[in-house]
Amino acid sequence: MEKQKPDLEWLFHPRSIGVIGSARMDKDAQKVPHSFYFTVSLRSMNYRGPIYVVSRSRPSDVYGGEGVYRSIPDVPDPLDHVIVCTPAHAMPGVLEDCVRKGVRSAAIFSSGFEESEDRQGARLQDEILEIARRGNIRVIGPNCMGLYCPETGLNFRADLPNNPGVAGMISQSGGMAIRTIFQGTEKGVGFSKVVSYGNEVDLQSWEILDYLAQDEATRLILVYIEGTRDGRALLRSLKEASGRKPVLLIKGGLCAEGRRAASSHTGAMAGSDHLWQAMLRQTRTHPVRDVSELLDTAMTFYFLKRPTGRRIALMCISGGLIVNYTDLAVCHGFEIPAFAPDTKKALDEVIHAPGTSCANPIDMASLFFSNRIYAPMFEALDKDTNTDFILFIIAMEYVRGLEYQYKVSVQQIVEAFLEILAKVQKPFVVVIPPSIEEECRLAVERALLKARIPTFLTMDGALRALSARIEDPRQDAVSR
Amino acid sequence: MEKQKPDLEWLFHPRSIGVIGSARMDKDAQKVPHSFYFTVSLRSMNYRGPIYVVSRSRPSDVYGGEGVYRSIPDVPDPLDHVIVCTPAHAMPGVLEDCVRKGVRSAAIFSSGFEESEDRQGARLQDEILEIARRGNIRVIGPNCMGLYCPETGLNFRADLPNNPGVAGMISQSGGMAIRTIFQGTEKGVGFSKVVSYGNEVDLQSWEILDYLAQDEATRLILVYIEGTRDGRALLRSLKEASGRKPVLLIKGGLCAEGRRAASSHTGAMAGSDHLWQAMLRQTRTHPVRDVSELLDTAMTFYFLKRPTGRRIALMCISGGLIVNYTDLAVCHGFEIPAFAPDTKKALDEVIHAPGTSCANPIDMASLFFSNRIYAPMFEALDKDTNTDFILFIIAMEYVRGLEYQYKVSVQQIVEAFLEILAKVQKPFVVVIPPSIEEECRLAVERALLKARIPTFLTMDGALRALSARIEDPRQDAVSR
Repeated sequence: MEKQKPDLEWLFHPRSIGVIGSARMDKDAQKVPHSFYFTVSLRSMNYRGPIYVVSRSRPSDVYGGEGVYRSIPDVPDPLDHVIVCTPAHAMPGVLEDCVRKGVRSAAIFSSGFEESEDRQGARLQDEILEIARRGNIRVIGPNCMGLYCPETGLNFRADLPNNPGVAGMISQSGGMAIRTIFQGTEKGVGFSKVVSYGNEVDLQSWEILDYLAQDEATRLILVYIEGTRDGRALLRSLKEASGRKPVLLIKGGLCAEGRRAASSHTGAMAGSDHLWQAMLRQTRTHPVRDVSELLDTAMTFYFLKRPTGRRIALMCISGGLIVNYTDLAVCHGFEIPAFAPDTKKALDEVIHAPGTSCANPIDMASLFFSNRIYAPMFEALDKDTNTDFILFIIAMEYVRGLEYQYKVSVQQIVEAFLEILAKVQKPFVVVIPPSIEEECRLAVERALLKARIPTFLTMDGALRALSARIEDPRQDAVSR
Repeated sequence: MEKQKPDLEWLFHPRSIGVIGSARMDKDAQKVPHSFYFTVSLRSMNYRGPIYVVSRSRPSDVYGGEGVYRSIPDVPDPLDHVIVCTPAHAMPGVLEDCVRKGVRSAAIFSSGFEESEDRQGARLQDEILEIARRGNIRVIGPNCMGLYCPETGLNFRADLPNNPGVAGMISQSGGMAIRTIFQGTEKGVGFSKVVSYGNEVDLQSWEILDYLAQDEATRLILVYIEGTRDGRALLRSLKEASGRKPVLLIKGGLCAEGRRAASSHTGAMAGSDHLWQAMLRQTRTHPVRDVSELLDTAMTFYFLKRPTGRRIALMCISGGLIVNYTDLAVCHGFEIPAFAPDTKKALDEVIHAPGTSCANPIDMASLFFSNRIYAPMFEALDKDTNTDFILFIIAMEYVRGLEYQYKVSVQQIVEAFLEILAKVQKPFVVVIPPSIEEECRLAVERALLKARIPTFLTMDGALRALSARIEDPRQDAVSR
């Protein structure tokens, strides 16, 4: 089977959208209808075209003053894209209406298809596919969240960020898409297009992947996938996409129990672990374990040029922590070599307080609180020929305890070294492990991320992410 | 060499304390002297005996109205314990004064001994040992934070918690001790006694370990160790301690680079990784990688009775997350078996909304927001004969998005299930991975920890900690 040329650009530019599904408020459960959420989401992202709500039941007043239509044919204008929330059994009728109306694409939110235990679900899913093919309408899902594209205002949750970035994502799970978008936004990773595609009845993961590989707005591709109906097509697309752009992938359903869960989640045939591993090895895809690792790794591609190797210039305020983290770094295959003689000489001139050590790793001890140290230290480390990147560890428990003693706040320290870092050429990352006063840690983390410095919660997370970044041949940061 | 019977109880009950070191404020650097911090720390913990500050320099006014003496002989009353912050070169003179004064123990905060590059440091350290042996004074350190014991008011940082717990700790690093105490307190793990022992010139790690093994106030022992001068004694003590109580250990300096860092940190001879691994295998000690893993594991001993096996009843609001976490659980050697028929029947009656699955893992979907579900669900899972413990995953990004729809706050849900959990016999743990609105996650985490439910930031962390808890033969939670 020859793959058709992917051209899904139109999918992200609908001129009008219909939201199909009950608009009635469930008064007993005080439950707002799903269709309302999609409508609100589109409005919140400033989707520019008209939005038509279609509901047979009397609409609740939550929709405000805009009109609600009783059926698709009643909608007075053309519909390009629809989001469907009606119960599964009503789906064939809704889709037939869509075909007649000339709808080009439908994202089916509703569940109750192949993933359900009910046999009727699988039959309904087959019916959907038949209508889609016959009627020339592209169906996303069912059992999915559909399309997110800040540029054109497509959205599936009102609280998703409306500023676009350069990461694209395909996710078989709506939840994993939402989690990734939110956590990514916290980490400074923004999104170009995200497609949650669920049961994958018509629109296939490989088609979206092909599109993202060619999409100029997308420079990094994140993938959550549980299974596929066409392993060969997916392999070909992964090969091509990962050849063009960094691709990071979580595979759901690696073990038998996970596959069982995946089957009741998206009806996916997940395939064995070995098969997937063998498949991924034929591509440049970076496999990751979970969303945290996905975004730790995404940060390194987003913000860092590729480190020239695995030699770390490591520093911390705490001697014990630096010993422990040096061990972890070596476990992960990194080196903490002695600095070059010139570096050593330069550091010797500035690091000579009691309890400090200016060998690599640098034990900064109380010098952490000395603003003056950062300029000469980072300048020396930037020039050091024995190390490839700088990893700075902030131990918040010291910051708290010693602020009073050294009359300097952590914000001042962070500002001081951000100013200096602007001149540093070497890749630079920060690890701030959880401690007391997490609120304070979050403030520091956000300040660093705002300055586009990858900031990690765990040393393990940082090291795994940096490994992927270094293994990947691409030199430049994908953003900017 | 026969080990002497450990009897260090007196060490934690000094009747008076001297803080020795410059009391002069460094006006240029606006730096408050270290001795001030120890004095403030002891006062903040309501240490009941008198505290005498000894300083040759004129004291700064930061000490308030209390008297400062120019030398140890000037102190008008007996001194049981001293904390010494004077420069390394002055140490022999200070210790000789202490011996003459009849001081029983000295914690030496100052650095500049064997850990320094200066040869004079090693010589000074030998001199300290000689004076300690001859003068019958027990020396802790040098290059350490010394003693923390909330019960008797011993303290080395004013902001350490003053409520005792049942975890004891020996730490070669003061920083790792502080980090562990703070992070432990956040997790609900409190401390009986903590000894930061640094360069270990006189008082040995194995002596403190022997003491903690016998101490009735201590029921769980945490260890951070970089090296030892007497591997056989330490092995014997680890065997005995881990036979009596759960012992969790971080080894610093496992790799050559880590050993180099350890050597400039505490002057420790760290020993090779293989040697340590072989040694630990002869004991029941649980090796852990870092402080986060130490406390994740500590929580399971602190709060959980031992699960009867590795079979998890797993549940989450998000289908994709549960598929992914099921994979991680299986990777870690856990099982997610089908529920027993009675359980399945009971769950079928309550879990039947669209998108849910009541097989194991349970995909709660929107039922997460239904308060009514928790009582019958947990009751059924508690009785289930096919699973050993319950692992509940909270995905904060759903909580935020859907609160409006379901008219229930996450606090209400947490309260609802805490009330029900009070009746559940099976071990129960929660994982809340980082998401958006970390402040909200922290609030939920704190509410759960307050109710003594181990709550983890990562699935990996939870699974590693639970593995250690299950491997350990001890049945009861160490607290209460």
